[in-house]
This record gives sequence, C-alpha cells and structure tokens, in this order.
Amino acid sequence: MTALSPRRHPSRPRGVAFELFKHYAPILKIISILWLILALFMLVPLVVLLLEGDPDAKAFGLSIAVVLTAVALVTLATFRVTIELKPWQMFVLTAASWVSISVFASLPLILGAPQLSLTDAVFESVSAITTTGSTVLSGIETLSDGLKLWRGLMQWLGGIGIIVMGIAILPFLKVGGMRLFHTESSDWSDKVLPRTGGIAKATLGIYLTFSLVAALAYWLAGMLPLDAVVHAMTSISTGGFANSDASFGAYADRPWLLWMGSLFMLMGALPFVLYIRFLRRSRASLWQDQQVRGLLLILAVAIGALTLWRVFHDEPLGTSLTHATFNVVSVVTTSGYASSDYTLWGSFPIAVFFYLTFIGGCSGSTSGGMKVFRLQIALLMLRNQLRYLIHANGVFTTRYNGQSVSGDVSRGVVAFSFFFFLTIAALALALAAMGLDFVTALSGAATAVTNVGPGLGDIIGPAGNFAPLPSAAKWLLCLGMLMGRLEILTVVVLLTPMFWKR
Amino acid sequence: MTALSPRRHPSRPRGVAFELFKHYAPILKIISILWLILALFMLVPLVVLLLEGDPDAKAFGLSIAVVLTAVALVTLATFRVTIELKPWQMFVLTAASWVSISVFASLPLILGAPQLSLTDAVFESVSAITTTGSTVLSGIETLSDGLKLWRGLMQWLGGIGIIVMGIAILPFLKVGGMRLFHTESSDWSDKVLPRTGGIAKATLGIYLTFSLVAALAYWLAGMLPLDAVVHAMTSISTGGFANSDASFGAYADRPWLLWMGSLFMLMGALPFVLYIRFLRRSRASLWQDQQVRGLLLILAVAIGALTLWRVFHDEPLGTSLTHATFNVVSVVTTSGYASSDYTLWGSFPIAVFFYLTFIGGCSGSTSGGMKVFRLQIALLMLRNQLRYLIHANGVFTTRYNGQSVSGDVSRGVVAFSFFFFLTIAALALALAAMGLDFVTALSGAATAVTNVGPGLGDIIGPAGNFAPLPSAAKWLLCLGMLMGRLEILTVVVLLTPMFWKR
Repeated sequence: MTALSPRRHPSRPRGVAFELFKHYAPILKIISILWLILALFMLVPLVVLLLEGDPDAKAFGLSIAVVLTAVALVTLATFRVTIELKPWQMFVLTAASWVSISVFASLPLILGAPQLSLTDAVFESVSAITTTGSTVLSGIETLSDGLKLWRGLMQWLGGIGIIVMGIAILPFLKVGGMRLFHTESSDWSDKVLPRTGGIAKATLGIYLTFSLVAALAYWLAGMLPLDAVVHAMTSISTGGFANSDASFGAYADRPWLLWMGSLFMLMGALPFVLYIRFLRRSRASLWQDQQVRGLLLILAVAIGALTLWRVFHDEPLGTSLTHATFNVVSVVTTSGYASSDYTLWGSFPIAVFFYLTFIGGCSGSTSGGMKVFRLQIALLMLRNQLRYLIHANGVFTTRYNGQSVSGDVSRGVVAFSFFFFLTIAALALALAAMGLDFVTALSGAATAVTNVGPGLGDIIGPAGNFAPLPSAAKWLLCLGMLMGRLEILTVVVLLTPMFWKR
Repeated sequence: MTALSPRRHPSRPRGVAFELFKHYAPILKIISILWLILALFMLVPLVVLLLEGDPDAKAFGLSIAVVLTAVALVTLATFRVTIELKPWQMFVLTAASWVSISVFASLPLILGAPQLSLTDAVFESVSAITTTGSTVLSGIETLSDGLKLWRGLMQWLGGIGIIVMGIAILPFLKVGGMRLFHTESSDWSDKVLPRTGGIAKATLGIYLTFSLVAALAYWLAGMLPLDAVVHAMTSISTGGFANSDASFGAYADRPWLLWMGSLFMLMGALPFVLYIRFLRRSRASLWQDQQVRGLLLILAVAIGALTLWRVFHDEPLGTSLTHATFNVVSVVTTSGYASSDYTLWGSFPIAVFFYLTFIGGCSGSTSGGMKVFRLQIALLMLRNQLRYLIHANGVFTTRYNGQSVSGDVSRGVVAFSFFFFLTIAALALALAAMGLDFVTALSGAATAVTNVGPGLGDIIGPAGNFAPLPSAAKWLLCLGMLMGRLEILTVVVLLTPMFWKR
C-alpha cells in the first residue's frame, strides 16, 4: 500500500482534513436542509410578532439570521458534495441533527422576552423538539403569542421528525428491533431516501391534515384561535406543551375539550404507516394491527382501574372517567399534559402512572417510551420460554402481526429494553448525586428518557415545573430526552470506541 | 387405546385418585424427609429451653409433634413408592417443599412466647427460610434464647437448602439460564440425586465449617456465645436476622465485628462449587472465576463511591469505610443486616442501595437477587448487539468463564430478568393499592423478591419493621419472597394452565 502510493500519508494535516471533510460533509449537507426548514418555521412567530408590533420580533429575526448564516456556510462548503450515506454516517446524522436543531431552536428564548439562560433555553427547546413537554417556564399565559406559537411549532416539527425517522431511518439501522417494521423495502442500500420519499410525503400529508382537523375542532369547541392552533400542534405531536401553567387543567371545566384532547393524542400515538395503508388499501388494517390493539387494551385497563379507584373514593363517575382517560392517554402516548394533579389521587394511581410512563405508544408514531410492540414481543418471548421449560424439547417461534419474529428483532428488543432501563437508572443515580430526592431523581430520569414530560413529587410532578432543578441536572435531563428520542442505541453506539475505530 | 384397555376410565373416581397418588406420592415422600430434618432442627431450641426451664419449650415440643405426625402419615402412605421424578414433578417438589417447610417452621412462633398471629408467624418464617431477613418482631433482645436460636436455625437451614437447590435442581430445570452451571454432568436423567450427592455432601461440609469458624470468630471477638452462634448462622446464610432491634448496629461501636460480618456474608455469597474445586483441584479457580471477580468489582465500586460520599460530608474516613463496606456487602449479598440507618446518608446513597438491592451475589450461593452472572451475561449480550449495529454482517458469540454461552442460556437470562422485574412491579402495584406509599411499596416489593430484607422509607427501612403493614401486604410479600427464592420462573411455570394441561 505504502509502496504503491508513496505520496498519501494519512497523518499529514491536509490528508486528515480531507478525510474528515469527505466523511462529514454529506452529513452536514443534509442537516443544513433541516436547519433551513427550522428557519422557515421561525418565520411564523416572526410574522405574528411583527403584526402585533411586539418588539420580540427582533429575537426571531436575529435567530433566523444566525441559522441562515450557518445554512449558507454549509451550502457553500458542500456545494459539490454528493449525498450518499453509509450506515455509520446515518448514526452521526441522526444524533447531530437533533442536537443542532435543538440548539438553534433555543435561540429565540435566549435573545427574546423570557431571556432564559442558555441552560434553561436549551432544556426548553430539547424538551420541545423531542416532544417531551417538560418546561422550565412559568406564567406561560403571559408569554407573547409568538413564543406560544414557537413552543407549539417546535413540538410539531419534532413530531413529524420522529415519524419520518421511525419509518425511514431506524429500521435500516436495525436499532432496537425496529427492523420488524422494515417491510416496505427489504434491503439496505444507499437509495433509502428516494424510495421512502413517497411514504414520507403521505405521512406529512396525514400529519398536516390531523393537525388542521384538531385545530379546527378545538376552536369550534371554544378555544381561542391561538390556543386551538398550539394545542392542536402539541396534541398530534404528543408533545404536551400547553398555553397555561395549569396545562390542560385550564380546560378542566370543559370535559368535551379533554375528550377531544384524548382523541388527538391517541391519533398521534398510532403508527402513521397504518393510516397510509388504511387510506390506500385495506380499511380494516388499522384495527387488526396487533400493536394498535395492544395499546388500546393497555389504555382500557389503566383507565378502567383508575376510574374504579376514583369512584370508590367518592368521586362522580363522569369526572373520574374523563380525567382518568385524559391523563392515562396523556402519559401512555407520552404527551405529558395534565388535566389535574393525579399524584394527589393516592399511592395506587401514583404507581400506575409511574409504570405507564415507561410504556409509550406505537412505533412509527410521535410518541416515545419503550413502545407497545417491544412489550408485546418481550411477552411473546417470555411465553415461549415458559413453554420451553415445560416441554423441554420443543422449538417455538414467535409470530407478531402474522409474520415470524427473527432472532435479530428479538435480540434488538432485548438490547433496547436493557439499555433503556440502564439509561434511566444511571441518569437517576446522577440526579440523586446532585441532591434531588429519590422519587424526583427516579421519576425525572424516567420521564425524560420516555419523553413523557411530568415526573412525580412536588418539584417535577404534574403540578410542578423543572425550573428549580440545578443546571447540571437540566443538562443531564437534556441528554436523557435526546437519548430516549433517538431510541437509546443510536446514541450509545456513538459513545463506544468501537464505533470510531471502525 | 380404549379398545385395548376397556376397563380403564380416567374419569372414574378411583382412577383419578390413583393417578393423583401416583404423581404426587414421590413428591410427598421426598418432602417428608425435609420435614423430618426440620423437626430435628426444632430439637435444638427445645433442648435449650428445657435446660433453661423456660415454659416455651412446650411450643417447640408441640410443633415437633405436629411435624412428626405429618412425616409419619406420609411415610405410611408412601412406604412402597419408589422415588423417580420427572421434570414437572421437580417443579412441584421445589415449590411445595419451601412452602410447607415455612408453614411448619412458623408453628413455634404461634404456639409459644411472641404468640404471633398466623400472618405474622408465617411472614417471619418465610422471611427466615428464604433468608430474606425482614422481621415483624420488635424487642428482639427480650426474646427467649430458644426463639433467637430458632430464627437463626431457620435461616441456616434455608441457606443450605438454597445452595443445594442451586447446584442440584435448578440447572436441570433450565430455569433462568442456570443451565450455564450444569457442568458436572451434561444431561438430564432420573438419577440426579445420587450423582450430585457427592457435591451436596461436600457443600454441607463447607457450609458447616464456615458457620463454625464464624461462630468461633464472633465469640472470640467479644459476642456472647448465643449471639455468636446466631449471627454466624445468619451471616453465612446471608439471612440477616440479628438478635437486636438495632440489627448489627448493636455492634456499631466495635468495628472489627462489622468487618468480620462483612467477610462472613461475602463467604456465603460466593459459589460453593468453587470452594469445592478450590479444595479438590485448583487453588486459583476461586479468584479466576468471572462471577466472583464481577461481584468483587461491584462491591469495590459501591463501597468506594459511598465512602467518598460520606467523607465529603464530613464523616471520618475509618467510620465511613467500615459502615459503607458493611451495609453494601449486606445488601449486595442480600443479607439485610444494617449497621446504621443508611437512608439518612442522603439521596445518592438511597439510590445506590436501591439499585444494589437488585444485584445479589453469585449463583450457587446462599444469596438472592438477580445474581452477578445474569448481569454479566446481559452486559455481554448488549456488547454483542452494539457490535452488530456497527459491523452489520458479523456473527458474535458470547463467552463466559471461558465457555461459549448458548442461546438457551441467554434466553433463560433474559426471561428471568423480565419476569424478575415484572414480579416486582406487579407486587409494588398491589402493595400501593393496599395504601402503602410509593417508596414503601416499590422498595418493599424489591426487597422481598430479592430476599434482601430492609426496604426504604420510614416503615420498612433499615431502622423500621414490617409489623405495621396490613395483613394482605404481608401475605403478598411472602409470595414475593418465595418467588424470588425459587428464581421466579419455577413458580411462574406452576401458575400457567399450560403446566397443568401437560
């Protein structure tokens, strides 16, 4: 090798720079497109603030300028670069895009009205973009219309980002058993993006339609136009940011709004690919899907149990059912709105909500958590193991949604589950070391990694706020939210020396 | 079949009774031997109480009479039965022996001095026999010598029972990856007991020797003879019953006793098979064992972290190291003594002790929990999964202690881990429904299933006591302790309709 090409020294500065550029330029080029989209989204609050004559328009103007400058620099530098990504570059792209977008999205919160510290601003934008919904802001009612819109838009953008990532990227990276959903095209190649383009476009159409329907419905049901738009965006994206410190509790006296909210969160937590199939082919596919049925079963059992619990504790049936439904749907879909402080309902409800935090909605939706299909595949594996113990010599296969589950997928599900709980445990330990009490540390770590939003306890519970936490804890929770959003393994892979030695 | 033997109707009452007898008589016959051993153990407190002229001798006399009557009835009924067990009978035998022995062992606590209710007595004896060490008794200092001895003897008996079960039964039942330790003989057959007889005898010898050494050492170091004997039995069995409400804290002013206690608990938590190999063959085998090294690493890290934490909080180094070591070793080996209320050390130590609760010692020892080897195999599987994500087409094998880990063992480890956490979660939910606060419910469920002993919070924490819990909670915790002791799957298998339809 050295004999044949004596002039190429990989250790020569120019050579290293060239290698780095060759490897990372295509990644940057794609990310810059996402930055451009972010800048376009920032135009919405900018225009609203300008129309209202609000001086905070400046903050958005400045932010757009910063982002566009970054886009311009990258575009100039990577003008001739062709986009063809290897799997390792997809891992870097995935993580880098979420991190950089969160940082850029935080700019208006620093430059404008609430003038948050860098920590608080990044926490708020990471929480938004990952559709977690934890907030450090209080007095949300008094924020400018532009900022309320921006919080909703960040979650809405994050929501569609997650769906597209779940459909187009994660199955190819074989992360956490997601290959199970790799049905549309059966092999990895460099032409992923064009082939999944059709699905992405259809998904975007459905997402947009759902959001418009939700906004219209909320508005007709009595919300102010701005509130209707923001809550529509944060419901369909299962994000959970509300326009009031009382979260959705601001509408506690209007049960029909709570029921609508429950429906829209649920719509956001179902697999978007199934909506496409529903429209294109079989009308029945949505209700025959094992994951959808699993989610509905989980919701029904939890809502039933909590409603009974509340009725036994002398609450009226109607109120109990409404609030049990809303809060259960909110936590399971990882939205994180609260219609009331359910941690005051007793220790059984607290335990139920703690467990529900981990579950999450369906894969290929906007929700986080473990995802229903992983729970189901784990349970199928457990059943096989019991069969194996009883009938020592049998060979058992696992079938899910009519197809047999490969060892590949099972191992992915197991690895995901272990890393998922390890991440939460490690995060909780670090939070406890920063002085947070045990329940706050544990539930805070869980609610971050699952992208739910509220935790347990007085500080970060459904009636609380993340502002009082120490800065270091906020940064750790940002890491947790991002790791959860990227299905853990995508980030863990980047943290191994093995990946970089590749 | 019916044509050839027209006179055999399986539904005929006599036929059913005969079938039942044929299936269950061999099981009962073996269990009655264990009952006999229990009765012999009851002679020890009986003799001590008689010598001291304590009227409670009557309680032990009566208990022995009850147990011996049961033994006699079974012996008469199964006189001609030959012992040859199928795997399914081993499952029933395992569960039935632990349950029946716990019930019989509770008799003296009901008939004699503390005159506990059935619930409290069974809780205490299940906690003892499973070497958990949770107690409902207070004023333990004032108990009769006979009762103190009985509590120690129950744990000592449970301890040897667990080792023998882990060596001779569980590997053959392929429960939870225990087949990994199925090295002495490579196939299942009906002649398990004689073949493992040699190992069982050697194990008993080592267990007895360790206990005698511990008793002698405790006595020479200043404990009263009775305390030395009881603490020796409850240290080597990693049981954790002490002769004082302050647990081992009664010796907090004598650090050398705490160090001895740490050593003896650790001795009980190492694989007893390795001691045999150490004596018979290779001197190095004990320190080269991957599981032993893993356990020591876990202990070193936890002790180091907590000692540093305490020193940073202005405690002297010596005291910090002594108490961190004692309590970490106590929880990780699932003994459950406490030398001080470590839940007052802050929220970081609380989180550390909560996590340590799950780990457990080595397989084939007296300790409970997940066991170190399962954690290690899980981590090896995770490493392979990361490798797989990075190098998409590689095939990776897992090696543990020099041998390759079969898919069989991996699946067993995964199934165990899932059921382990599911059991704890379900138990905690039920405890919360009974009104226990979240931390008590969660830590209570965990400490029962892992057979550790103390939980967190004011009620069941290291300074507390299980007496105030509602009766239903105590019965649930008994179930949890037994399930944990029997490695979960052994019990879960019995709860499936599949098992009984076999």
